[in-house]
Amino acid sequence: MAHGYNGKILVVDLTTETHEVREPEERWYRTYFGGTGIVAETLLTEDLTKVDPLGPENVMVFACSVVTGAPISGFNRYSVGARSPLTGGFARTEAAGFFGPELKFAGFDAILVRGAAKAPVYLWINDGQVEVRDASDLWGLDNWETLEQLRESTGEKKVRVLSIGPAGENLVSYACLQNDLEHFNGRTGMGAVMGSKNLKAIAVRGTGKLTFADPEKVKEIASWHRERIKVHPPNVGLGKFGTPGLVQGVNASGFLPTRNFKEGQFEGAEKLAADNYHDTIFHSRGTCWHCTVACKRKVELEDANYPLDKRFGGAEYETLAAFGSMLAIDNLPAVNYANQLCNLLGLDTISTGCTVAFAMECFEKGILTEEDTGGRSIGFGDAEAMIWLIRQIAAREGIGDVLSLGVKRAAEKIGRGSERYAFHIKGQELGLHDGRGKTGMGLGFALGATGGDHIETPHDVAFQGEGISKLFPMGLFDPVDPVKTDAAKVRFFYIGQKAWGINNLLGLCNFCSVPIHALTFTRLVEAVQAITGWDTSLYEIVLGVERANVMSRVFNNRCGFTPDDDTVIRRWFEKMPAGPLKGMRFDPETFRGWIELYYEMSGWDKDGRPTRGKLVELGLDWLTEGEEGRV
Amino acid sequence: MAHGYNGKILVVDLTTETHEVREPEERWYRTYFGGTGIVAETLLTEDLTKVDPLGPENVMVFACSVVTGAPISGFNRYSVGARSPLTGGFARTEAAGFFGPELKFAGFDAILVRGAAKAPVYLWINDGQVEVRDASDLWGLDNWETLEQLRESTGEKKVRVLSIGPAGENLVSYACLQNDLEHFNGRTGMGAVMGSKNLKAIAVRGTGKLTFADPEKVKEIASWHRERIKVHPPNVGLGKFGTPGLVQGVNASGFLPTRNFKEGQFEGAEKLAADNYHDTIFHSRGTCWHCTVACKRKVELEDANYPLDKRFGGAEYETLAAFGSMLAIDNLPAVNYANQLCNLLGLDTISTGCTVAFAMECFEKGILTEEDTGGRSIGFGDAEAMIWLIRQIAAREGIGDVLSLGVKRAAEKIGRGSERYAFHIKGQELGLHDGRGKTGMGLGFALGATGGDHIETPHDVAFQGEGISKLFPMGLFDPVDPVKTDAAKVRFFYIGQKAWGINNLLGLCNFCSVPIHALTFTRLVEAVQAITGWDTSLYEIVLGVERANVMSRVFNNRCGFTPDDDTVIRRWFEKMPAGPLKGMRFDPETFRGWIELYYEMSGWDKDGRPTRGKLVELGLDWLTEGEEGRV
Repeated sequence: MAHGYNGKILVVDLTTETHEVREPEERWYRTYFGGTGIVAETLLTEDLTKVDPLGPENVMVFACSVVTGAPISGFNRYSVGARSPLTGGFARTEAAGFFGPELKFAGFDAILVRGAAKAPVYLWINDGQVEVRDASDLWGLDNWETLEQLRESTGEKKVRVLSIGPAGENLVSYACLQNDLEHFNGRTGMGAVMGSKNLKAIAVRGTGKLTFADPEKVKEIASWHRERIKVHPPNVGLGKFGTPGLVQGVNASGFLPTRNFKEGQFEGAEKLAADNYHDTIFHSRGTCWHCTVACKRKVELEDANYPLDKRFGGAEYETLAAFGSMLAIDNLPAVNYANQLCNLLGLDTISTGCTVAFAMECFEKGILTEEDTGGRSIGFGDAEAMIWLIRQIAAREGIGDVLSLGVKRAAEKIGRGSERYAFHIKGQELGLHDGRGKTGMGLGFALGATGGDHIETPHDVAFQGEGISKLFPMGLFDPVDPVKTDAAKVRFFYIGQKAWGINNLLGLCNFCSVPIHALTFTRLVEAVQAITGWDTSLYEIVLGVERANVMSRVFNNRCGFTPDDDTVIRRWFEKMPAGPLKGMRFDPETFRGWIELYYEMSGWDKDGRPTRGKLVELGLDWLTEGEEGRV
Repeated sequence: MAHGYNGKILVVDLTTETHEVREPEERWYRTYFGGTGIVAETLLTEDLTKVDPLGPENVMVFACSVVTGAPISGFNRYSVGARSPLTGGFARTEAAGFFGPELKFAGFDAILVRGAAKAPVYLWINDGQVEVRDASDLWGLDNWETLEQLRESTGEKKVRVLSIGPAGENLVSYACLQNDLEHFNGRTGMGAVMGSKNLKAIAVRGTGKLTFADPEKVKEIASWHRERIKVHPPNVGLGKFGTPGLVQGVNASGFLPTRNFKEGQFEGAEKLAADNYHDTIFHSRGTCWHCTVACKRKVELEDANYPLDKRFGGAEYETLAAFGSMLAIDNLPAVNYANQLCNLLGLDTISTGCTVAFAMECFEKGILTEEDTGGRSIGFGDAEAMIWLIRQIAAREGIGDVLSLGVKRAAEKIGRGSERYAFHIKGQELGLHDGRGKTGMGLGFALGATGGDHIETPHDVAFQGEGISKLFPMGLFDPVDPVKTDAAKVRFFYIGQKAWGINNLLGLCNFCSVPIHALTFTRLVEAVQAITGWDTSLYEIVLGVERANVMSRVFNNRCGFTPDDDTVIRRWFEKMPAGPLKGMRFDPETFRGWIELYYEMSGWDKDGRPTRGKLVELGLDWLTEGEEGRV
């Protein structure tokens, strides 16, 4: 190794208001890499499987990777993890933007936060200097106000702020973190964990320069990548339309979740889709650290009911589906306003939309009535009800209090058969993709460690025909049908999960990197080599992915999850009522066979537990337990 | 893929004297690659698990790889396989030299030979033209005479000849193939299979030019590699001393098999070692196709009893141990003369030496007596007895007839407790390395598909201290002790086996390539990309290795091998009697634990059978069987 990788981990204890800096040996970085790897290693070594997710004994980790902050498009993501208050299991949620690189420039690869402050605080990290500062005046502010205030109090216009809104303060189970109001660690309720620690924000300023083993090579790859992004069709499309560009196709294919997963097509989809979006509310493109794709949308609209402000982010595909088709609302300004509200209040738009959909279907079925809502109708298609419910949830007022638990626990509280309409996996609401039309993603939902996770594997449809060749460097040879599931499809998921897992391990944006976007496997490996100086390989990196996945699985097993939790929602075992996928369903027994095949492929036993052999293979000997070495 | 890989497979039926040419699709090449992969795929698709290894229904395969013949040091090996007459299971044996590249230049990636000729024939392949020619006048000739005659009868001075000697004709179970009398497909008795088919030789002349996707890059890598070989210490050492350079160190470390594995040090080792070798018999260095290492030795000696001829090859480390320390013979000319005799007669020096050692120990123990030998003493240390026994074995005369079966079946025939001294694994005699001093290699012996195979994994000792970093691109993180075995050591073997497996898959010389020698993993992947035009990766290549290993395992399972066959020899469960490793032994129960851990790491069940999940992962769905999908 020409160049040794050095890094620092900041460990903050909010209870004692002290901090220390760890400098793990290079080998640790080469084992865990970043993102999911560092999150999983932390959650296990901190032994969080029995702690109260909202108690001071939970530990939050904010992790970049060994390549974060390199000036290559997409090398900008960081992960946040802890024990999840939403699922009770493994939490990990990524965001892009500028926060991750800034943290690296400030001298840290990751932050661990233990304990809880007695009163609201924020963390101020300024080029290696660390302060726990009073945040009493920030408590109660929305994310925009928080950002503005912190720019002022730190005296740094360019400060990067990761913060929670009132929803996080109020411990809504699916409260999120944001940076720059365009980038969100949305899933698994990390906002509530931050809230429980009385930690309003982390403000970072870093002016350091990263050193690379081969700076010229990094530059060359960055420039090659930049030029390729300009012509590589999936990147061109993302730049032009952002993720709203997906709505039309997903709806036409019949797997756009509609009315709480009842249907796969929405009659108002065209109003939510990219053309209308761009004609009516689009303001400009936004981007992340050093990224040429620029898939983010800024929106603007002068409107009495639903005014849109370009500072507060435009809705992505997931949000358009969560507040649009899922709620049968085709009012694009209203849907975007819901998005804006969530961004300011700090709510995950996916879980929020799904929870509102649950409430609306319960109302439709008479399970929830005007008695529960204080006299208000909350039927499908009612944009005002949606906005009202979002505010109620963030504030945990009225019906919002029970809904703030997420659909699983809300249904447990509500009873009256409401659990039939509470669609979640492992306790987390689902990304907006109907598994009956993307069976590989269906497997991803069932098997992802965080539950209901749509970024566990690339979209099945990306791998038809020619697309299949993009996975060749990982050895997948059979074209797969997006709808049909068989052994080849399970293998597709198995390999696709590893491919996208690279991005979550190294903190790369799925929209810039392998396998579908402009960065190829070969150039990715070259980039990691040039940055770290390691003579690494795709083999070693994928081993890192598998190690991270296995650790997250072990964590969940120790939290009490069982193979019964590796499933999908009731409605996907029922026939799709209409559209191109009419009649499609998962057969429960066949589906169980796929899951068991995946276990076997993964070196897990029939109970879904990684074998001792698998742990030893991955260098996770430290996780083996007892006589039988089962975990 | 900028460039599609095209190749041809020649299929010859000797019974009907017909042939055909197959052109598999590119995907087939990218799945099986070459060497072990093509051998294993052939043996399984031809369903050879029940055939008589010496019957016409056995099929031989001679396989190069997609990169064989590229002008890079070490890109020159080919594998030969069939059902083995020695083990009854999977046979595969590599050789280097010039034959493989020549076959590619003649237009073929591989040859399959079916059936058996009625009378002796040879195969003449001349730039794509194929003839089955009469070889009556070659039958009975030694390998040198055969080569000379074929140069004449083909009219091609530069013809490359793969042939068997009298031992192969006589169906000695460990008869070998040779090319240029310096390069041998030594193991698993492929000479006998060729003999059983009445196929004396394959003569090849090829003047075609291989096309590469990126010829400039191939040139650049070749030149980089050449320069590195000149300074990379292990390569410099091999060039200077050849493998005889190992004798001294192996003896000093106490694991030089001596007197039929009774001891680990030989008092006459110095006489066999490199210094004496170079002072007394060394003539010049020899080499293979386009290789800068030049590890081969030519020897010359005028001597009444043991004259050495530079045309007939000099002994390698394995042979020096097999005829030297194993037989307690320190007469270097005699040991080299034994080597020369085996080369001319077509006997594998490892199996021959081990079988002679078995006979000598049986003689020492009184199990074999002068009654068995026709009045001749055959004690340890008797060089003349060694030479006599080699001739008897090749001719299958007297005691040589029973010894021609290999130690396992010879002991079965001899009885009288001789099996206590018959040291083999899965029926094949062992490469000359005492597993008590190289426990990783001990696992390789136990688990290699061909049995007794010393090229299943790199030497443990190469991975001490700094050396360990050479396996980093495959994710091995713990330095391992050569003697101690624990979970980390099993992982070392598991990964080391994959690393060396790359060389057997792609037909690369272990002395030029990964992980210890001058070619690095990164440059190897670049070379495969530049040659084939595939955007491949170390991940995909290692998947190919695992696929080949799993196929060979399935083949053996179907032949009836069980976990009981995954073991080492009795003496390694007993204490080393003296030397630095005094007292070292494998504990049987602990050893079984390592084997079972390896199964688990490999995705094999407790019966050592690859699970359906593993087969599906590797795209080997076609090997799954029955309800349970067990194989």
